[in-house]
Amino acid sequence: MPPRTPLLDRVTTPADLAPLSDAELATLAGELRAELIDAVSQTGGHLGAGLGVVELTVALHAVFDAPEDQLIWDVSHQAYPHKILTGRRDRIRTLRQSGGLSGFTRRDESAYDAFGAAHAGTSISAALGFAEAGHRAVAIIGDGSLSAGMAFEALNHAGASGRPLLVVLNDNGRSIDTPTGALAEQLQTGDIAPFFESLGFDYSGPIDGHAMPDLLAALRAHRDLVRPHLLHVRTQKGRGFAPAEAAEDKFHGVSKFDTATGAQAASGGITATDVFAQALISEATRDPAICAITAAMPSGTGLKAFAQRFPDRMHDVGIAEQHAVTFAAGLAAGGKRPFCALYSTFLQRGYDQVVHDVALQSLPVRFAIDRAGLVGADGPSHAGAYDIGFLRNLPGMVVMAAADEVELARMVATAARYDDGPIALRYPRGAMTGASPEAEPEPLTIGEGRIIREGQSIALLSFGARLGAAIDACEAMATEGIQVTLADARFAKPLDEDLILALAASHDALVTLEDGAAGGFGAGVAELLAARGAFDAGLRFRMLTLPDSFLAHGTPDEMYAEAGLDSAGIAAALRALAEV
Amino acid sequence: MPPRTPLLDRVTTPADLAPLSDAELATLAGELRAELIDAVSQTGGHLGAGLGVVELTVALHAVFDAPEDQLIWDVSHQAYPHKILTGRRDRIRTLRQSGGLSGFTRRDESAYDAFGAAHAGTSISAALGFAEAGHRAVAIIGDGSLSAGMAFEALNHAGASGRPLLVVLNDNGRSIDTPTGALAEQLQTGDIAPFFESLGFDYSGPIDGHAMPDLLAALRAHRDLVRPHLLHVRTQKGRGFAPAEAAEDKFHGVSKFDTATGAQAASGGITATDVFAQALISEATRDPAICAITAAMPSGTGLKAFAQRFPDRMHDVGIAEQHAVTFAAGLAAGGKRPFCALYSTFLQRGYDQVVHDVALQSLPVRFAIDRAGLVGADGPSHAGAYDIGFLRNLPGMVVMAAADEVELARMVATAARYDDGPIALRYPRGAMTGASPEAEPEPLTIGEGRIIREGQSIALLSFGARLGAAIDACEAMATEGIQVTLADARFAKPLDEDLILALAASHDALVTLEDGAAGGFGAGVAELLAARGAFDAGLRFRMLTLPDSFLAHGTPDEMYAEAGLDSAGIAAALRALAEV
Repeated sequence: MPPRTPLLDRVTTPADLAPLSDAELATLAGELRAELIDAVSQTGGHLGAGLGVVELTVALHAVFDAPEDQLIWDVSHQAYPHKILTGRRDRIRTLRQSGGLSGFTRRDESAYDAFGAAHAGTSISAALGFAEAGHRAVAIIGDGSLSAGMAFEALNHAGASGRPLLVVLNDNGRSIDTPTGALAEQLQTGDIAPFFESLGFDYSGPIDGHAMPDLLAALRAHRDLVRPHLLHVRTQKGRGFAPAEAAEDKFHGVSKFDTATGAQAASGGITATDVFAQALISEATRDPAICAITAAMPSGTGLKAFAQRFPDRMHDVGIAEQHAVTFAAGLAAGGKRPFCALYSTFLQRGYDQVVHDVALQSLPVRFAIDRAGLVGADGPSHAGAYDIGFLRNLPGMVVMAAADEVELARMVATAARYDDGPIALRYPRGAMTGASPEAEPEPLTIGEGRIIREGQSIALLSFGARLGAAIDACEAMATEGIQVTLADARFAKPLDEDLILALAASHDALVTLEDGAAGGFGAGVAELLAARGAFDAGLRFRMLTLPDSFLAHGTPDEMYAEAGLDSAGIAAALRALAEV
Repeated sequence: MPPRTPLLDRVTTPADLAPLSDAELATLAGELRAELIDAVSQTGGHLGAGLGVVELTVALHAVFDAPEDQLIWDVSHQAYPHKILTGRRDRIRTLRQSGGLSGFTRRDESAYDAFGAAHAGTSISAALGFAEAGHRAVAIIGDGSLSAGMAFEALNHAGASGRPLLVVLNDNGRSIDTPTGALAEQLQTGDIAPFFESLGFDYSGPIDGHAMPDLLAALRAHRDLVRPHLLHVRTQKGRGFAPAEAAEDKFHGVSKFDTATGAQAASGGITATDVFAQALISEATRDPAICAITAAMPSGTGLKAFAQRFPDRMHDVGIAEQHAVTFAAGLAAGGKRPFCALYSTFLQRGYDQVVHDVALQSLPVRFAIDRAGLVGADGPSHAGAYDIGFLRNLPGMVVMAAADEVELARMVATAARYDDGPIALRYPRGAMTGASPEAEPEPLTIGEGRIIREGQSIALLSFGARLGAAIDACEAMATEGIQVTLADARFAKPLDEDLILALAASHDALVTLEDGAAGGFGAGVAELLAARGAFDAGLRFRMLTLPDSFLAHGTPDEMYAEAGLDSAGIAAALRALAEV
């Protein structure tokens, strides 16, 4: 049963807050919290962060005049209360569902979403842009995001610019997991004012982010600024929902749950992340030089288990992917063998460091790339679409993708023994085929693919986790009397040239398949075929990749169907070739 | 005539410093400075930064025990004195020449080069990696580099780690141009200790970086650390060479010069950079929403001229490419029309921001990508090899490359009028063909290429600044009786599909050409041809790209010849097709 929310029921847009007294605003915050809990209990999503900023959200919308004033939520997984107050309450129970509201701010969803966000640390840069363009702008940024170098870059520039700009530091003492970094410690125990003052900001606070009178007073005092100002607000992640407050992760991200007990719906079984982590622990037991790096994602990357086993060999650098990669390069140059475990979308943050510090020096850094391909409810901002392309064109880089759990464990074993330069393995979010990895996975031969099934006329060459859908597609084709040869390339670099050229020579048609954008595996195969003249006498060659568009959130299955990379889409592409 | 250097003549490796007294070390520094000036007067290269660290270099090698102790020079353009002291004096007059010493540290050049560098801000991350791997490590980083977010990320992590690690802040009050950012101001005028202490570092200094006794005492005191320590050293860029001290840029980068007067050899005429800047000024005169962003490169990007004309519309954000891109996104969202001018290699630093903040939101940010392709003496760390690939696979991105000055000015005019989303134009270092841009350049139609010459049988499709070499190659082929069709694609995205498919249909062979790595323009053409079945009946298709290797420094002409992308290499590729 939805909570009673008599005040909230009168709020359609932030303008409806104007008639409310400060006391009523405090009451409204309570109703907003109840509504948030009820909504997310039905949809799942990010809860803890939003619970922590309920009062702050109400106070911001009471004091500032959005959408004319630009409120910019860093990461924006805490923006559900903002969505409820800005005309989207009627759709709040569609959060993260297909066709429903995004779990993040999006400029194309609402005029109140001044700037879309999902990666950490962008808000101050964006707010300064708005300020320079003549707008009143407020960035709301968490202490976890503050470890991102770009937040520092923005503070440093904003402070020197002297522009009026309000940065609200939403200090909940948390990242997704325990926050790391000297600044995080200083925030909790020391005087942080000199840090921000060194960067040209006036500083005030800390104030209690759940005391509405204090919030309103502080925001009103700093509404009309003449200089950059940082307001330090202390909040409690998960505030006001006992199960969230008690949980280790403060209900950072949840599945559907019981509002009375906080009990969450069971999630799926063993994930690719789990398989990676267990395989890495096994390798690290064998090789003491192996260490692991995460950028504030010990849970998300599975490395929490590694840290429990090898606490001294685990490095959580905070949300700091640039540093993570070059730190790994330094470790490798110093004799260690680091596994740098990042989501594909966040590896983009460290791209220059992969090029300049790792590849150019041919250092043995192993990149474990999680969340490769489409990720579902987190949507386009989290899609792992580009890593194949931006890694495979770097000289000396080895790029692997796992088709299933057995292969994933073998690729970890392969990377753990590869010292000739950098190597990357990619794998998707969630479970794969459910296969059980071998207890002692056999390393692969670098650049060696494998034939999955033999057919005639048409060959399908898969790279990565779409292999399951490819198998289904080939079986469907078989029922239609068309036997398709299916191979798993395993490597986007180096390519299995013998395998690929043999397939091209012995079939009329060759189709590549990958869960990545154009310019990746298929493009590499095209380059090989062109260089060897395989197109000269005619080859019906096609590439199946992610489409050239940003796919809206949905379930991964829905998204892959939309992309034409589910078994039906693959079969349709094969059938079109068979019918020529 | 080379300077007299009796002490320096006795130094082959840093071990030879051990017998010298402190007073002799000071004398040695003077000789080292004279040798540096003489060498760079013959080779050209980076001078001002090296002159500023002569005493520091001697002191570091006197106190620390390299190569066992790891000295890591940030950017490393100041490492020439280090090279002279570490067994490379006999080759110092080959600096930046083909086959000679690199202008930067390189692990494959010397065991004393602990970590290669060329992009700013990497040293602390690398040094922390060495420290975690059990080594004594020293990072030497300039105040300009300190604005890079990754340096902050590294300080924040190192400070929390508690590892013994010495960071020497080489504070010369300079970036290449005037330094920017609040921290740079604070360094010159305020108490900077609290900033570093907030990040978990002990702080000492500032000390005079040209007073050998002070340097030796401070380094000896902080040699055996138990915690992270930052030693603040004030130096003078260009120190000890009057023409450098007097020059506005402190002889940051120089051509060959006269050691008596400092008079430099004349450099070439109008560069692509100049053409871009003049065209942008022209557009900005017309459209008041246009503004410009540089990341510490007002001279290098040509935007100094823009700043003189429009001081309020120019933003130098410091070495902070991540922020530069998202700041541009904020400006665009706020109604401005920013041109973000970055070197191709440094745009890699802002790649995630291009994806997440610009492309995903379809904001009208214009990327002016300088130093596209091979850059010559700066070598592989500065090559602009990857931007075509990593931009053209982003949904909604427009990617152009200029074939000559006329085209470049037209592309600036095109970008200045394009409001539908992000757009990028790329152009090379130095002069192009020498063509004179039109006074009022006509904007291009988005996605429209052009035929340069009509031939038969073989078509060459060029993207960007290799067009000149392509014309030469086609003319050479014509003398052999082979008429090659030549087209300038102009756009890697959207492709001129009609033009490309027509070329494919009307020729037996189609060759693409670009000054970028695989996965770029040619790969995009291959994707189009595959999707449209253009390979089905046979097409001799080839792609000419940069090779899959990091090319050592040389002249651009030498490097393009090595890459097979000079006119001879292109002609050879065409001839091979003609002979089939």
